[in-house]
Amino acid sequence: MSHQHQDLFENRKQFQLERLILFSDAVFAIAITLLVIEIKVPELHEPVGNALKEALSHKFPEFFGFVLSFAVIGQFWVQHHRLFGYVNNYDNKLLWLNLHMLFWTVLVPFSSSLNSRYGNMDTVWMWYRSRICMIALAMYFLWRYIGHPKRTLTLMAEDPLLT
Amino acid sequence: MSHQHQDLFENRKQFQLERLILFSDAVFAIAITLLVIEIKVPELHEPVGNALKEALSHKFPEFFGFVLSFAVIGQFWVQHHRLFGYVNNYDNKLLWLNLHMLFWTVLVPFSSSLNSRYGNMDTVWMWYRSRICMIALAMYFLWRYIGHPKRTLTLMAEDPLLT
Amino acid sequence: MSHQHQDLFENRKQFQLERLILFSDAVFAIAITLLVIEIKVPELHEPVGNALKEALSHKFPEFFGFVLSFAVIGQFWVQHHRLFGYVNNYDNKLLWLNLHMLFWTVLVPFSSSLNSRYGNMDTVWMWYRSRICMIALAMYFLWRYIGHPKRTLTLMAEDPLLT
Amino acid sequence: MSHQHQDLFENRKQFQLERLILFSDAVFAIAITLLVIEIKVPELHEPVGNALKEALSHKFPEFFGFVLSFAVIGQFWVQHHRLFGYVNNYDNKLLWLNLHMLFWTVLVPFSSSLNSRYGNMDTVWMWYRSRICMIALAMYFLWRYIGHPKRTLTLMAEDPLLT
Repeated sequence: MSHQHQDLFENRKQFQLERLILFSDAVFAIAITLLVIEIKVPELHEPVGNALKEALSHKFPEFFGFVLSFAVIGQFWVQHHRLFGYVNNYDNKLLWLNLHMLFWTVLVPFSSSLNSRYGNMDTVWMWYRSRICMIALAMYFLWRYIGHPKRTLTLMAEDPLLT
Repeated sequence: MSHQHQDLFENRKQFQLERLILFSDAVFAIAITLLVIEIKVPELHEPVGNALKEALSHKFPEFFGFVLSFAVIGQFWVQHHRLFGYVNNYDNKLLWLNLHMLFWTVLVPFSSSLNSRYGNMDTVWMWYRSRICMIALAMYFLWRYIGHPKRTLTLMAEDPLLT
Repeated sequence: MSHQHQDLFENRKQFQLERLILFSDAVFAIAITLLVIEIKVPELHEPVGNALKEALSHKFPEFFGFVLSFAVIGQFWVQHHRLFGYVNNYDNKLLWLNLHMLFWTVLVPFSSSLNSRYGNMDTVWMWYRSRICMIALAMYFLWRYIGHPKRTLTLMAEDPLLT
Repeated sequence: MSHQHQDLFENRKQFQLERLILFSDAVFAIAITLLVIEIKVPELHEPVGNALKEALSHKFPEFFGFVLSFAVIGQFWVQHHRLFGYVNNYDNKLLWLNLHMLFWTVLVPFSSSLNSRYGNMDTVWMWYRSRICMIALAMYFLWRYIGHPKRTLTLMAEDPLLT
């Protein structure tokens, strides 16, 4: 294989990894934006300022749920951003572990709207928290898989000073 | 044409290909996230824990349909990811074959919600399976077009040892 | 300015252009996927196979509208892909001309659902066609702006053999 | 650390920054496209051309709100595009400041649909304008953080002629 050919392969591999990351970002971005769809504009019987103010204040749990879920997804995105800053390679299992993490992320808008609707019930909070825990767990699987010294997925793994 | 100019053209061509791939990824990402929109928060007459648990357990077919469709789209994304790892060039027909594949992918959220609503009916399963088959078929067209030795769309095609 | 610094500036400029393109792609991708949201799962009084088949066959205009709008947006995406293959630079006016084109593209899902609902009415076809014409017109403005020999937005403009 | 290794780290850092930018773009793109979802196809009692024309003309405030919000988000995107053209590095606080800005952007579709529904009420305009101001404020925080001479986030900060 010529040297230039090797370069092409190397660039392609890098792009394949970047594709994995940008696909995850797209899913994060859509999940975080869909949260706002769940907040419906209130229906007013008579369109007066006070009625609207009251209707909006009744929506406070929904807004709170929106802020909370936005922070949760945002925080996982930051974590994913940091994690993949170390990654320099990919394999098939990494793709699926990442999809597994995205699966739980995609469920957040549903859990969030359940939460803002019936937030006073214990069952809902348990459901909501267990969903968040699943993302955290999936993220942990990613960390463990990526950080494993036997695999050469990271920049550091190549660094003899670090391993 | 100067050497630097040639480089610019080469970079541009690479980016045009990457654009095709990232556009597909965006469509995949939206289709996979829209699946969750179809799961509506249940309406409860009285907001009690047991009523909610029952309502959620009635939603089991919807959750199952969601997991199934997520796995289906995820699997096609992994396949698309692998396939385009070999691609090194593009032409107009490739753009349209790819759009054709995306067309059937975009239909999945509709088929999925049909499935979770009337999943006990034979007609629906037939519809659902035929839609999935269409994605698989479109993906096969892509493989065949890309892998054809006459065209120089892949890295391997340039490799004299492989063709 | 050092040579390395110059390189950084050049890379940044290229990325700024790629960002413009990928942002457009994201909007195209969302618009093309939102089309399917407009097709609602039919409500059946009794869930029998024949009733569903009939309900789905009543939805034929919606499916036709979906296919049509998918093809329209897909075709504009292919055109945009070809057009920006020549572009090598950007300025503020290009950003706004591009946003103008995206504005009309974003309207397609609404026009499409109007079309599939009241497609037998002349007013609706006129509205639909006029919206498509607006995208075409906006795309033409982009071509004219980018292709203008006075501006140096394209690779070709730099090529003395071509201008 | 070898020279090649250094290059890899440098490329990775650049990609991490690009990822931050493309994630923002995805959120901008979704927020700008969701605006059109808020415009519902009118329900007509009898599908006649005149009834539709009248129904659409009643929707004028919604269209106006759509155009306004599209322009607002578009303008903030152009501003974000210009701002990050200078950025050459990132840190954790930049990620969060950017997420903060995206939070207010994501709220625009809700504010916009509130506006187009009850646009004649003072409360709504106040709400709408205050939301837009929050994006502007968050954008200002980003400018101030990025432009600060103490931090080395920008290309210019490295340029001894400019600082």
